[in-house]
Amino acid sequence: MSTVSTDVARILINGTWQNATPQSTFHATDPNHNSQLPQSFPVSTWEDCEAALDAASKAATELRRFPASKIADFLELYADKIEAAKDTLVEAAFAETGLARSPRLADVELPRTANQLRAAAKTCRSGNWALPTIDTQTGIRSCYRPLGPVCVFGPNNFPFAFGSVSGGDFAAAIAAGNPVIGKANSSHPETTRLFAELAQEAVNETGLPPATVQLIYRTSHADGERLVSDPRVGATGYTGSRSAGLTLKAAADRAGKPIYLELSSVNPVVITPGALNERGEAIVDDFITSVLMGTGQFCTNPGMVMLVEGDQTESFIGAVKERFASTQSGTLLSPAVAKSLGKSVTTLTSLGAELLTGGGEPEPDRCAYANTLMRIDGKKFLSDPEGFQTEAFGNASVIVVAKDVAELCDVIDHLEGNLTGCIYSANDDSEEGDVDQITFALEPKVGRILNDKMPTGVAVSPAMNHGGPYPATGHPGFTAVGVPASLLRFGKLTSFDNIRSNRLPALLQDAAPTDETMRLIDGQWRAGTV
Amino acid sequence: MSTVSTDVARILINGTWQNATPQSTFHATDPNHNSQLPQSFPVSTWEDCEAALDAASKAATELRRFPASKIADFLELYADKIEAAKDTLVEAAFAETGLARSPRLADVELPRTANQLRAAAKTCRSGNWALPTIDTQTGIRSCYRPLGPVCVFGPNNFPFAFGSVSGGDFAAAIAAGNPVIGKANSSHPETTRLFAELAQEAVNETGLPPATVQLIYRTSHADGERLVSDPRVGATGYTGSRSAGLTLKAAADRAGKPIYLELSSVNPVVITPGALNERGEAIVDDFITSVLMGTGQFCTNPGMVMLVEGDQTESFIGAVKERFASTQSGTLLSPAVAKSLGKSVTTLTSLGAELLTGGGEPEPDRCAYANTLMRIDGKKFLSDPEGFQTEAFGNASVIVVAKDVAELCDVIDHLEGNLTGCIYSANDDSEEGDVDQITFALEPKVGRILNDKMPTGVAVSPAMNHGGPYPATGHPGFTAVGVPASLLRFGKLTSFDNIRSNRLPALLQDAAPTDETMRLIDGQWRAGTV
Repeated sequence: MSTVSTDVARILINGTWQNATPQSTFHATDPNHNSQLPQSFPVSTWEDCEAALDAASKAATELRRFPASKIADFLELYADKIEAAKDTLVEAAFAETGLARSPRLADVELPRTANQLRAAAKTCRSGNWALPTIDTQTGIRSCYRPLGPVCVFGPNNFPFAFGSVSGGDFAAAIAAGNPVIGKANSSHPETTRLFAELAQEAVNETGLPPATVQLIYRTSHADGERLVSDPRVGATGYTGSRSAGLTLKAAADRAGKPIYLELSSVNPVVITPGALNERGEAIVDDFITSVLMGTGQFCTNPGMVMLVEGDQTESFIGAVKERFASTQSGTLLSPAVAKSLGKSVTTLTSLGAELLTGGGEPEPDRCAYANTLMRIDGKKFLSDPEGFQTEAFGNASVIVVAKDVAELCDVIDHLEGNLTGCIYSANDDSEEGDVDQITFALEPKVGRILNDKMPTGVAVSPAMNHGGPYPATGHPGFTAVGVPASLLRFGKLTSFDNIRSNRLPALLQDAAPTDETMRLIDGQWRAGTV
Repeated sequence: MSTVSTDVARILINGTWQNATPQSTFHATDPNHNSQLPQSFPVSTWEDCEAALDAASKAATELRRFPASKIADFLELYADKIEAAKDTLVEAAFAETGLARSPRLADVELPRTANQLRAAAKTCRSGNWALPTIDTQTGIRSCYRPLGPVCVFGPNNFPFAFGSVSGGDFAAAIAAGNPVIGKANSSHPETTRLFAELAQEAVNETGLPPATVQLIYRTSHADGERLVSDPRVGATGYTGSRSAGLTLKAAADRAGKPIYLELSSVNPVVITPGALNERGEAIVDDFITSVLMGTGQFCTNPGMVMLVEGDQTESFIGAVKERFASTQSGTLLSPAVAKSLGKSVTTLTSLGAELLTGGGEPEPDRCAYANTLMRIDGKKFLSDPEGFQTEAFGNASVIVVAKDVAELCDVIDHLEGNLTGCIYSANDDSEEGDVDQITFALEPKVGRILNDKMPTGVAVSPAMNHGGPYPATGHPGFTAVGVPASLLRFGKLTSFDNIRSNRLPALLQDAAPTDETMRLIDGQWRAGTV
């Protein structure tokens, strides 16, 4: 892998690292010292996007001819290379994000990233993600097919596992047979560049089309909108801020191009009186671990806790407040995150949230903000549900104290769509009536509902849904994490009606392509020949 | 069933047939005589929409508590009632649409409608549509859950099988556990009213919430946009004109509400020289049957035929022209369809398409237009691909004659998204090289690709895709026909993470709800207990 250059970094277009067309440059920040990192990165003009789109379009056509096993080989080789380059990747990400080298980057996020790629390879190889369906009576067969070039806009908070050329959207798009145009997150461009180098090596070694993986670092907003709505694009995956995401969504929607967005979520956690009476201290521990982990910078960070008024609730709040105040605040990803967090706290307190601890201004010498706990009652929340759902991304949380379960359910009824919703309740069945009401209110608002655990763990598992109703995401039927389901976002449903057998895709021919391939044959899921 | 009243027809809100709020009225037209039918129907104000939305919202909440078997019972009972009322329904639809009583309405569309409802009932009962997924290692379980009230805007061309309270969208939305607000197509309001009466009887007899099925006839455009973007709505299904559909799409997209649209399609049919040499006359028969059936008013009507220049092509065109000219033109659905068809033909000929037969003005005494055949060459098409893809909905078709297979593929590369694409080729393998190129170009443009058959048959079968890339529909991953896949449009993906077993939905508990239920348990699709 090449070392950091003092020149402007190159973009990866059609298999070649080349200079971007002249435009401005930017630098990432070392959040540990609030200082500019040396490497400069180009802001691309439309010319670069045009070159990437043209090459991706050709690669998409070529990839449609490739056997799935070759694409799976690429994903597995890339995973191996990522593991072999662990130290370099971890150092780069630490410098750009401030996330802990260990366990976070080296021992959690990097293995997860490699495993995601391998899981995607496995379903790519079997074809199971594509829901192959065969009706022998009507002579019709169907499956999901590659959709075309996928643009991936990665977020700031997972430089590996959601990275534009390494993360879940990338793995899903490639495994579904599409080339990827990665747009690096501006807070960790060097990390992304290193991944693209590894990916490009793996592309070459497995003989995939050179434009299977391409990388640009940044564009103007206008060019971003043009990119996601370009006729050559199949779809876009975006994880990031709500305002930028909605602008891209509007552009893609107008062009009829699918765009999958992960935008914002306060991830409500309900804790009943029975749970607090029974195991209040343990729940304080659970909550503190979850809400301050990674300095609260998880999409599923528990940003809102809902309680019913009472002594046990006051004890819980007191303990959390004490822990917030006595725990050193972690480093935030970038100056922008620190600034935005401060702004959200100001919004919430100016609307009337009581500041229990924290608040104030970001630290000057590093990207950091005091652990911040706010409190409102249910009535106050209901006076401005939209305002009090302002996401405070980072180490902050809002506690909503309802006067009773009915008011708590009313608060839930006024929630926007969220990624997750948790319910902690008494271990015996003494609260089942209340919990039933709470569950019934909460389930339609969230993509994943949890019992007796915090939302921050997102297992890569077939039943995982990392999605949810708008505005958590752009569509309530899709997940960004979880294999094979996450691949469906980048597939085109296609029926083959009376198609001569030699012309059918391998996945739909009478003989199954692999022993693992399961197909819905005449209404029954099974392996084997038709 | 009540007979036609001379008063303004009533709308169905929350189980009660009631007067719409004062507003203008409209009448349907008898297309056989170009005359106004006697029954007047109300154009609803927002007040009616508001009442429907409120009631639907409550019904959606109640339906989430209903066992799937009750909803399936409703669908089956409704199918029985439709069959029992066949004569009344056929007469009403014939008067409003001019479609043949037999075989079309009585023997094809009505049985299909009942069978669709029964197929939806079956997958509703088993839960198989919801892709239940269980990971025992992580303790996570997922499935699709009801999304909320669904608005259905039915098209003019299938008063039964795509009707707003009887068709595929209706069956899919209900079977997925959602109430439906039907917006009748203005060309057959009385037929829709009759269906709503039957549906309401079935709702009452099976004890579903009264607002499970509601009906309004028409709104202002502004209220339609407001309806599909209302916070209480789960999703919308729309089949109809492209311009109205895109207006609704923009409104729904802005609100983050899923909308599934079926908009327009020219359904290209490629016929190779080898196919024509071998069985040209048979293909003429196939084509004439398909293109003039139902007066060409199918979503999958073959509106564009692509040929390679040569003697066999001239013979084909000559024979088709003769058959077009000598066949009496059928009745069109409404004056609007006749007018729009004339306008499209004028657009195409003014761009330079040669009029081989037909054209002119609609007939004065009934809704009809001459069978119209137009011709252009490949070069001409490529000079204005967008213009020459103007859909001429009805009994008209455009023939594109390319100079060779390469130009033909170039034409295909310039096609918009379509529902279907057909390839007729020689029965031996003498053309496999050309066909491979053509297939490779055509497949990404269409939702369903066919060999050696015309596109107008749309079987209700698990592998059917009645969908396609934009602008054929609004999203390339979904189908409007085919059970169980069509139900996914109206489901919300939901993970249940560490949820206590007594709180899980029946579909995700250890014991499967029915013997037919197949679940993806630890990566394997199978029936039975976890």
